[in-house]
Amino acid sequence: MQAGRFITLEGGEGAGKTTLLTTLQSKLLAKGYEVVVTREPGGTPGAEAIRNLLVTGSAERWSALSELCLFFAAREDHLNRLIRPALARGAFVLCDRFTDSTRVYQGQAGGAGLEAVELLDRLIVGHTQPDLTMILDLDPAIGLKRAAARHGNEDRFESKTLDFHNALRTAYLGLANHFPTRCVVLDAQTKPEALGHVAWELLTKRFVLA
Amino acid sequence: MQAGRFITLEGGEGAGKTTLLTTLQSKLLAKGYEVVVTREPGGTPGAEAIRNLLVTGSAERWSALSELCLFFAAREDHLNRLIRPALARGAFVLCDRFTDSTRVYQGQAGGAGLEAVELLDRLIVGHTQPDLTMILDLDPAIGLKRAAARHGNEDRFESKTLDFHNALRTAYLGLANHFPTRCVVLDAQTKPEALGHVAWELLTKRFVLA
Repeated sequence: MQAGRFITLEGGEGAGKTTLLTTLQSKLLAKGYEVVVTREPGGTPGAEAIRNLLVTGSAERWSALSELCLFFAAREDHLNRLIRPALARGAFVLCDRFTDSTRVYQGQAGGAGLEAVELLDRLIVGHTQPDLTMILDLDPAIGLKRAAARHGNEDRFESKTLDFHNALRTAYLGLANHFPTRCVVLDAQTKPEALGHVAWELLTKRFVLA
Repeated sequence: MQAGRFITLEGGEGAGKTTLLTTLQSKLLAKGYEVVVTREPGGTPGAEAIRNLLVTGSAERWSALSELCLFFAAREDHLNRLIRPALARGAFVLCDRFTDSTRVYQGQAGGAGLEAVELLDRLIVGHTQPDLTMILDLDPAIGLKRAAARHGNEDRFESKTLDFHNALRTAYLGLANHFPTRCVVLDAQTKPEALGHVAWELLTKRFVLA
């Protein structure tokens, strides 16, 4: 049994996941909890090496099935070397993207199929499922503009078509329906401070924080 | 339906797979066939980038499940971009290692379990199974000495224990029993010229080459 709490943030590009993670981290630290903030793909040296293959290069660099296997190779490393030990210590693990991203990016919008994702999720993730998933919902036309303003060469997924990103949004909303206890949809057009407040309320209620 | 022939070579480190592939390639070319010689992990630019993660670094760099996913990510790329198009053209594809290596290295000696390998084999390889697999059988104590004499930094699997390599040999012989039509075991202590002759006889009979 895991003693800690595993919280994942999901959503399209530029939805504000990183900002919200930082807010929740501060609030949890202020309450005296151990907090591990991490991200996927990546989070450990091995998984970050795989991340580099996934997020750079042309949009058509990998098939959805290759991506699927690369994501789970990285996830296995991340789980064994960071997430599971942190949960065993009783920490809050806040993770920017997890299997739900694989479900929507590779399984649904990418075409590898949800069945393939679930098969690998059972093999690699097993019982280490998130306790709570916040899905930041945003019109991709807005999110992609935000994302384009910010970086670097990690733009492989952003460079896919707007149709692809619209399919992601629909798939995320479908997941929220499919996992109604675990998943909560938040409106990512809300200003960051108000969004942080809503998310913190949700978290304190869900985990009965003092 | 594939028009070509898919032949894989398997065996422990230093068993002489590369030399035998070159011999078979020459003989097939002399008969006028198109021949594609390739290897795993690798064979395409994407798969070679994944190979680099797999064959370098410390023996404990990846868990068997991470390796399993990395091998199939590379295999998917290799199949789609090289092997399937070559088979569709009617070529002979000669491949140095394929799923049997994953079965014995990760599934059996590595401990990921054969069930996990078969699950990914169905997902990624599907009907593109080898028509013939030659397993070069050799005492690992001899093979590792041969392999140590030859190279570079691609020594991650060689650096595993002798027990691991003995388990590989046993697992390969078990596979040959399990797939008696597809797999043939060859004694890798045979001198290269004689081994090439035996393998060529086998191939000409199996595929009724004129």
